[in-house]
Amino acid sequence: MNYRFYNAKILTMETTDIIEGELWVQGDQILYVGKGGDAAAICQSLSIESILWDREIDCEGNLLMPGFKNAHTHSAMTFLRSRADDLPLSEWLNNQVFPMEAKLDGEMIYHLTKLAVLEYLTSGITSIFDMYLTPETTARACVEMGMRCVQVSGTSGQEGFEASLAHMEERYQTLNQLDPLHSYFIGFHAEYTCSKALLEQVAAMAHKYKAPVFTHLSETKSETEGCRERYGMSPTKLLDSLGMFDYGGGGYHCVWLDEEDMEIFRKKGLSVVTNPGSNTKLASGIAPISAYLKRGINVAIGTDGPASNNCLDMFREMFLVTGLAKLREQDAAAVDALEVLKMATVNGAKAMNLPDTDVLAKGKQADIIMIDLHQPNMQPINNIPKNLVYSGSKQNVKMTMIQGKILYENGQFTKAYDVEEIYRKANEIVTSLG
Amino acid sequence: MNYRFYNAKILTMETTDIIEGELWVQGDQILYVGKGGDAAAICQSLSIESILWDREIDCEGNLLMPGFKNAHTHSAMTFLRSRADDLPLSEWLNNQVFPMEAKLDGEMIYHLTKLAVLEYLTSGITSIFDMYLTPETTARACVEMGMRCVQVSGTSGQEGFEASLAHMEERYQTLNQLDPLHSYFIGFHAEYTCSKALLEQVAAMAHKYKAPVFTHLSETKSETEGCRERYGMSPTKLLDSLGMFDYGGGGYHCVWLDEEDMEIFRKKGLSVVTNPGSNTKLASGIAPISAYLKRGINVAIGTDGPASNNCLDMFREMFLVTGLAKLREQDAAAVDALEVLKMATVNGAKAMNLPDTDVLAKGKQADIIMIDLHQPNMQPINNIPKNLVYSGSKQNVKMTMIQGKILYENGQFTKAYDVEEIYRKANEIVTSLG
Repeated sequence: MNYRFYNAKILTMETTDIIEGELWVQGDQILYVGKGGDAAAICQSLSIESILWDREIDCEGNLLMPGFKNAHTHSAMTFLRSRADDLPLSEWLNNQVFPMEAKLDGEMIYHLTKLAVLEYLTSGITSIFDMYLTPETTARACVEMGMRCVQVSGTSGQEGFEASLAHMEERYQTLNQLDPLHSYFIGFHAEYTCSKALLEQVAAMAHKYKAPVFTHLSETKSETEGCRERYGMSPTKLLDSLGMFDYGGGGYHCVWLDEEDMEIFRKKGLSVVTNPGSNTKLASGIAPISAYLKRGINVAIGTDGPASNNCLDMFREMFLVTGLAKLREQDAAAVDALEVLKMATVNGAKAMNLPDTDVLAKGKQADIIMIDLHQPNMQPINNIPKNLVYSGSKQNVKMTMIQGKILYENGQFTKAYDVEEIYRKANEIVTSLG
Repeated sequence: MNYRFYNAKILTMETTDIIEGELWVQGDQILYVGKGGDAAAICQSLSIESILWDREIDCEGNLLMPGFKNAHTHSAMTFLRSRADDLPLSEWLNNQVFPMEAKLDGEMIYHLTKLAVLEYLTSGITSIFDMYLTPETTARACVEMGMRCVQVSGTSGQEGFEASLAHMEERYQTLNQLDPLHSYFIGFHAEYTCSKALLEQVAAMAHKYKAPVFTHLSETKSETEGCRERYGMSPTKLLDSLGMFDYGGGGYHCVWLDEEDMEIFRKKGLSVVTNPGSNTKLASGIAPISAYLKRGINVAIGTDGPASNNCLDMFREMFLVTGLAKLREQDAAAVDALEVLKMATVNGAKAMNLPDTDVLAKGKQADIIMIDLHQPNMQPINNIPKNLVYSGSKQNVKMTMIQGKILYENGQFTKAYDVEEIYRKANEIVTSLG
């Protein structure tokens, strides 16, 4: 399908200037971003004779921008949403999360992931970095629905995730060949759930494939202190000493990194994926985002799974990234909104190795959202990027396009989905889990 | 107009149990809330012969609940939204807010308030507790649009707000007679902007009318410490020593109350109005909500004005109330979601002296919202109250009714408003302010 978006404001994220003009999509790619004007002249500049539009969309002055990259989630955990809140962390994990997770199968995960995909689309999220059981069925749900998905192994050497490295390696081969919408990273659950032998094996695999590695890292103070007791060093330092990050990667959460850890992140070019909603709700702490930015560390944003957040809303996360930094630093000027927008788009794409989705430009994948500026929370139009971060809400997402396909528009999902059936199935699974 | 809502889930907030049934509205009041069934039998139980419906609304299993009470705001500050962010507090106030405010007139405030009212409706807010310049034009905007509005004097003895107590008293008389949708409270800007003589005059007026008093109170650490230097005691203790709270009232923000202050709040039955979004964005700190609740203090929630938040979104505030308490207490069990829902509805109504709007019950004012549960962030339906607080978003507000009038429904405002004209006017005013 070929789309012409006209009468648009465009925030490409190559710069944070707003272009008033047009954006053309041909198939899965962006063909043109610019001021518009004479179509024949634009075609000539693109070295094409002409183009036939399947649809021309009057944006009515609304904003086009790159879709958000949700750089850490566990999609299928929708089944636990609002089931176990306001509990101490250990009770939540041991009495609620683990016993119910033990009963999940791949088919359930397929259906529960579909529910999460619907929510991503309402929030303008066009790609996710997912860690969960049965990645095959997560991949199936995402590819079927048109969601761009990067998965990462969450192995801890136990049943459930990849119990052996051979299994992870097999998945690394197959799940990276599955579909242009899907890729798969080497990873593991966390230092505190893995043996040293397992960590060494993962590091060896990273070396074999010259590949980055991601993991949950220093989410809580106690896990970080536990590692110091076990190994006499921080989790980051331990992993680095094993060669884990020799080809890049990074950590989810990173609430409790120290100066030395940050220096490793800087030197190795690792990414911090911050999850402020989850860190708030589970009382894990406030990550030192200002310190990361000062060192030039790539910071991306994730919602974490719906069990610990509980929603999958990049607008809430964006406000929290800057708001919590302001509280932590006691400085209302900490972490500018523009930095936050970069984290939610460009930096996420970098962490997830999706360079074709980072900005709106010719040749990039058409992962595009439209933000409704004809809503009271976007008025008056003083400063659009700041408005997005400080006032934006899911309600402003007027369209979500992934790979050139419109999957959500004006509050409606594509007719390819049976939305009520996805809800019914999720509720049925919850009931069956007891 | 008479409305019959059927096929509804109903959270009355008298209890937090969910009723499956019907809600009837007659004129501006709720006539019936219950399981529904035989209409003739219900009519008989209500001692009426029959009722003619103007409209019968199939709720499709969605949720009816009391509208949210936004217990602290400065509506007309929409003009400053996203105009001066990521600045240190003093620079923000002195270089941005005050110079632009000095140029505002009553007509501008009328238009800028209308923009805020639109946003309240999208967030399910059915009454506001507003402090700003020219309360006559704020009242006009609210009454014309159908928004329930309680205003409070923000005097500091300067031009702009009530420059004299005589002026405040005149407004106390006239603005409390204006319209059933409107009332007016005695108040003042803050301890640090008022002379002791003025504070004594305000306290005398509270005694004369046996009336509650509200003010900005201990928003920042420095203002609280400043009062200790000026008077040798905290702002709360100072004001109480002047008899300010002898007929109730309370404080906005209350981030920095100490034990003694809390004891005054408890004894005098005062309300804390917490503003977590604003306190986060301006790095003012995290209010000790758990400590307030432990003492049985009435805690309500406000958005503060759009200059310091920047949006008027009770869902974001509700998440922040519990989330920030969890971070402050380092306890994921701190401030249960049910408490937060009470704050956003019942406690707000108590602070604002709107006892007819607190819950859904026969004889109460029909200030009702419908929450769309057919959205992915509300599924599966494990626990509706927790879902509202942890996952809820403006996008879930399917209808907002005030005083028996539907003002917002399915993303559309009532046709009585010219929405684009309100936007145009707000942008024009911003341009004229330079």
